[in-house]
Amino acid sequence: MPIVDSISGRVVKKYKKDELIEKAKEMRAYNMIAITAAGSGHPGGSLSIMDMASALYLNVAVHDPNNPGWEDRDRIFWSAGHKAPALYSALGVAGYFPVEKMMTLRKFGSPFEGHPNSKKVKGVEFSSGSLGHGLGVAVGSALNARLEGKNYRSFCIMGDGEQDEGSVWEAVMCAAHYKLDNLVAIIDHNKLQIDGMTEEVMCLSSLAEKYKSFCWNVIEIDGHNMEEILESFEAAKNFKGHPTVIIADTIKGKGVSYAEHAVGYHGIAPKDGRIGEESLEIALQDIGYDIDEREVDRFFKIAEDYQRKVDEKIQKKLPSFSKEYWWNKSENMKAEMNATRNGFGKALEEIGEDTSLVAHGADITSSIRMDHFYKNNPEREKRFFSVGVAEANMIQVASGFAKEGKISFAGSFGVFATGRAWEQIRTTVCYNNFNVKIAGAHGGLLVGADGATHQALEEIAVTNYLPNMTVTVPCDAVETYKITKAVAYKDGPALIRYAREATACVCTEETPFKLGEANVVRFRGEKDNFIDAFEWSLSSEYENEKEDLSLIACGPMVPEAMRAAWILKEEYGIETRVLDMHTVKPLDRKGVMRAAEETGAVITVEEHQIGGFGNIVAGEINTSKNYNSPLVMDMVGVKDKFGESGAPWELMIEYELVAEFIAKKAKKLFERKKEA
Amino acid sequence: MPIVDSISGRVVKKYKKDELIEKAKEMRAYNMIAITAAGSGHPGGSLSIMDMASALYLNVAVHDPNNPGWEDRDRIFWSAGHKAPALYSALGVAGYFPVEKMMTLRKFGSPFEGHPNSKKVKGVEFSSGSLGHGLGVAVGSALNARLEGKNYRSFCIMGDGEQDEGSVWEAVMCAAHYKLDNLVAIIDHNKLQIDGMTEEVMCLSSLAEKYKSFCWNVIEIDGHNMEEILESFEAAKNFKGHPTVIIADTIKGKGVSYAEHAVGYHGIAPKDGRIGEESLEIALQDIGYDIDEREVDRFFKIAEDYQRKVDEKIQKKLPSFSKEYWWNKSENMKAEMNATRNGFGKALEEIGEDTSLVAHGADITSSIRMDHFYKNNPEREKRFFSVGVAEANMIQVASGFAKEGKISFAGSFGVFATGRAWEQIRTTVCYNNFNVKIAGAHGGLLVGADGATHQALEEIAVTNYLPNMTVTVPCDAVETYKITKAVAYKDGPALIRYAREATACVCTEETPFKLGEANVVRFRGEKDNFIDAFEWSLSSEYENEKEDLSLIACGPMVPEAMRAAWILKEEYGIETRVLDMHTVKPLDRKGVMRAAEETGAVITVEEHQIGGFGNIVAGEINTSKNYNSPLVMDMVGVKDKFGESGAPWELMIEYELVAEFIAKKAKKLFERKKEA
Repeated sequence: MPIVDSISGRVVKKYKKDELIEKAKEMRAYNMIAITAAGSGHPGGSLSIMDMASALYLNVAVHDPNNPGWEDRDRIFWSAGHKAPALYSALGVAGYFPVEKMMTLRKFGSPFEGHPNSKKVKGVEFSSGSLGHGLGVAVGSALNARLEGKNYRSFCIMGDGEQDEGSVWEAVMCAAHYKLDNLVAIIDHNKLQIDGMTEEVMCLSSLAEKYKSFCWNVIEIDGHNMEEILESFEAAKNFKGHPTVIIADTIKGKGVSYAEHAVGYHGIAPKDGRIGEESLEIALQDIGYDIDEREVDRFFKIAEDYQRKVDEKIQKKLPSFSKEYWWNKSENMKAEMNATRNGFGKALEEIGEDTSLVAHGADITSSIRMDHFYKNNPEREKRFFSVGVAEANMIQVASGFAKEGKISFAGSFGVFATGRAWEQIRTTVCYNNFNVKIAGAHGGLLVGADGATHQALEEIAVTNYLPNMTVTVPCDAVETYKITKAVAYKDGPALIRYAREATACVCTEETPFKLGEANVVRFRGEKDNFIDAFEWSLSSEYENEKEDLSLIACGPMVPEAMRAAWILKEEYGIETRVLDMHTVKPLDRKGVMRAAEETGAVITVEEHQIGGFGNIVAGEINTSKNYNSPLVMDMVGVKDKFGESGAPWELMIEYELVAEFIAKKAKKLFERKKEA
Repeated sequence: MPIVDSISGRVVKKYKKDELIEKAKEMRAYNMIAITAAGSGHPGGSLSIMDMASALYLNVAVHDPNNPGWEDRDRIFWSAGHKAPALYSALGVAGYFPVEKMMTLRKFGSPFEGHPNSKKVKGVEFSSGSLGHGLGVAVGSALNARLEGKNYRSFCIMGDGEQDEGSVWEAVMCAAHYKLDNLVAIIDHNKLQIDGMTEEVMCLSSLAEKYKSFCWNVIEIDGHNMEEILESFEAAKNFKGHPTVIIADTIKGKGVSYAEHAVGYHGIAPKDGRIGEESLEIALQDIGYDIDEREVDRFFKIAEDYQRKVDEKIQKKLPSFSKEYWWNKSENMKAEMNATRNGFGKALEEIGEDTSLVAHGADITSSIRMDHFYKNNPEREKRFFSVGVAEANMIQVASGFAKEGKISFAGSFGVFATGRAWEQIRTTVCYNNFNVKIAGAHGGLLVGADGATHQALEEIAVTNYLPNMTVTVPCDAVETYKITKAVAYKDGPALIRYAREATACVCTEETPFKLGEANVVRFRGEKDNFIDAFEWSLSSEYENEKEDLSLIACGPMVPEAMRAAWILKEEYGIETRVLDMHTVKPLDRKGVMRAAEETGAVITVEEHQIGGFGNIVAGEINTSKNYNSPLVMDMVGVKDKFGESGAPWELMIEYELVAEFIAKKAKKLFERKKEA
């Protein structure tokens, strides 16, 4: 069955084998154009699944693009959400929307987010992006079909690296337990994951034997042979009594010469944009879909026009002042930009010399800079342990080493490092007080185009209430470097929350630093370089200057708070005490208390769900303050909503986190204080 | 190899087959005596593993009871921590401590906690209790041996129900990836888990095929045949290039007639204590270990003497007043006690009539009262889905149903329901805004003797910062009933945090209730029944009485706060406004603000890591309050430490959570306010 009219039941279109091959080419072309226009995305895995996607959406699945919510439609769950552009291409070609719409891929406000959002794009069954979730959801959906006596089937598309996740095997076991023959899992077995070959990152062989042992019907095919693809779906449909998995032997980057078999093309756009080596031009040639250059230009224009509107909207949203205060936009106050993750990498490279250190990788090793542990010191590779996309086990293995006296570094995207493994961190790491140091990378909205699933906004809240845990959120690359070294040798578990995007460098090696003690940062007047315009002291050594208000910030919000202090002084003559609260736990109680008492006005500033940090500060103030101590307080943070795709700084403006918003809020709070 | 002297390298004792059989009997006897003396515990799984434990500790593993930290010892990881009494019996018989010491099992302050604590008992390799963690830790330990060129081996004892957990399969894959032939996993395949037969709860067959497909060396034996046991360990030792799993076919409750094959004997002590049907007397007869009755008496006396000291210590710790205020200890103010879980069960039974509801069980269905969904309505069983001990997949499957329009109830111990599945809850449930209702059962210290691993103290912190989530913590069984019904039909995800132990009933059906709005509870003078001594209003309908202070509480701490209000009035004439904050998110901002402004003194009261709730209240107050509004604040909660074993109310006193401590703190706060 194929695309149908859900009202009449009539078949609208069922593409034949040769048409499907052609359509797959067309979809590959759209996929590459959209990713190039976006400037980022996941070509490798979207190209490898494309032939399966073509067959599924244009021949196999029963669905109606004009009635996406039709109860009897087959459900297709994209567990590997990063293959989103393949999904969008398939939906576009199937008729859910004009395909040109997806050219706004990964841009701010576009429904076509980096990972699929079912609230924004019709035909997307659920919002996904976290590997390992989809099969269980498909199991629930398939069980529902049986419960309701419906004939729809559930398909679930997974990657092979995803098979490292234990939640997949829980779902595999569950599907077999319920003998769900209305469920078909598809594994895009392209044999590459982010860190390298699947067999080297985490050996999967033989996937077929594994699924068989879990009582699944296993079909192995060439995932680029349309005949085999169609036969496999037919066989799956006819097989009764067990769920079916189609293990599709595919080539990552299939169809684009320079992307085929290339580890580097997991998560980036064509290297040289539209023209030149490894460009879109070559990609389109390789794919062999006949597309007019003017059509490509039209697609790009759609993307550019959209981005222009975004730029205008964002610029309009940003509060303006008498002059420009944005990073490196004025003649003076120049700032160097560097990602905090680089500070982590640098420190890890240095302390990695210590043979009591071991490090663990969960398939995102280089991006989070964990590879700096061994990169320039290959003899340390024996102390690095890849665990695959299996964060829970990463924490378990790290605990095993810690138990034997090692200092274990383990990390991933913050949302997975702290969230996927939360219960392991709580009970095995914290209750045992093991020396496991968690690299909570890619924290916050600054992750950018990957969107909500990958933007961790809860790490402080979920780790702060764990006994024995040290929670740190360094403000720049230099401080991340210092903190990484400091927590490595502080007994017990620790979290280092750091970010992917470059943010302003505000510290130097000489800046005072003490784990567990805040720094007070004071604006002393404009300078050529931003960094020179501020004076830093350990909070215990700071003498009260009776400032008008305090900004208590952590992480990359410290530079924003500093910029706000600059604005407040220049625009309104307001003196601001900025607290760099790099250690959230244990909290510098005295530093917080003094800020509240000595300035009487406090704003907490976090790139995190609002209050996760701010409420800790509020609790500390309230349980220490005197009955009659006056105080006004406010908070800056993400207002209890998820992130989304967009450029990092677009999101920081949209979510009202940058200095201009902080300054506005501070001005208001100061007035409330003055008027009282 | 066997028990050795780690200094000389000399073999101290290596028990032979017949001796091991005898020793296993002896260990079974100690096991049953200790569990009977404790009045709770896990006889089923500790009896089934005992022959393997006897072989492992007295013949196979190289270790030195006089030098438990000896670097070259073999490591034995008890991933199935609930088998603790078997572990203690083995360690005692091996010589780590006089076996009589373990007779304080599960009692407050005893090193022999419900789940093993490596900080308290020598010979325990790591603190465990959360299923599915141990194999990964053993992998880390085995990798460390290889890295350090050590010859020690790592053994890991798991249950069969535990094989449902995905983190096990992550570790299984990882061990194979690293070809860890110094690792031996032991599965106590007794074919029963809490909810019933493993094949019915979550089909595992064939475990052997599964492990083989993951490239493990698999040995299947009769786990009660000592010859096979010894041979299997020898074979594992000699097998090179892959890790070995010994799948031991065992009988749950082995050796005790009434416990054998009995689902009911997973987690309870002999039904009739020492004498009578299903008693210790019969158990000891069945086991056939020749133990003098006077020796049994001596063991019991050790337990009783210890408990007497605990009673004294706890009684001494409890602040005393001019009279007795403890539950049902005075002539008047009588309270009915009922567990909040019963309110959940009652509501679920009622609303389960609605065919849009489905429910899911993660192998603790009856204890958390999820079984009330179908218990008296067997036709609803088709809408109940067992998923095994696999919390992440439970949330995924629940999401699949929710996606199809169902209202999905899913639950477990709070620490697993919210923590093990946290990232699934965040991204798949909350980001998609699915109607998944999470039963966070067994919240708080009131869990009792199971100890820290099972006492959830973080659920509010980990769920409150998730967009779309409703967080509820009802105060008694009646309110839990109301809340369960209310959140079922409120759109979006929700957590209901409720408890195992009976606590005071303070509401009736007529008590005002509105989801998202606090109740104000006022003490109006002593009555025969506690419940009649208080007046309840919705916070929006309450008229300010200018009380001396406010207690803002949630969950079973509301009755404690009410009791504190009684004490404060009777002892000091202090008027208290108690807020029953059953809905933590969305917070009744106005109710909180009024309490702060109208009384100027606030104490938050939570059976949770301190501040998880209290900081939310503090943040709300501070971001609303005026500059000059006077306020003092304090918090009652668990002071950033883990729970432990003990009777529920012993723990509540030890952790200073009960009314007497609240009243003391309130008195102090009131004085601070008065003096200002």
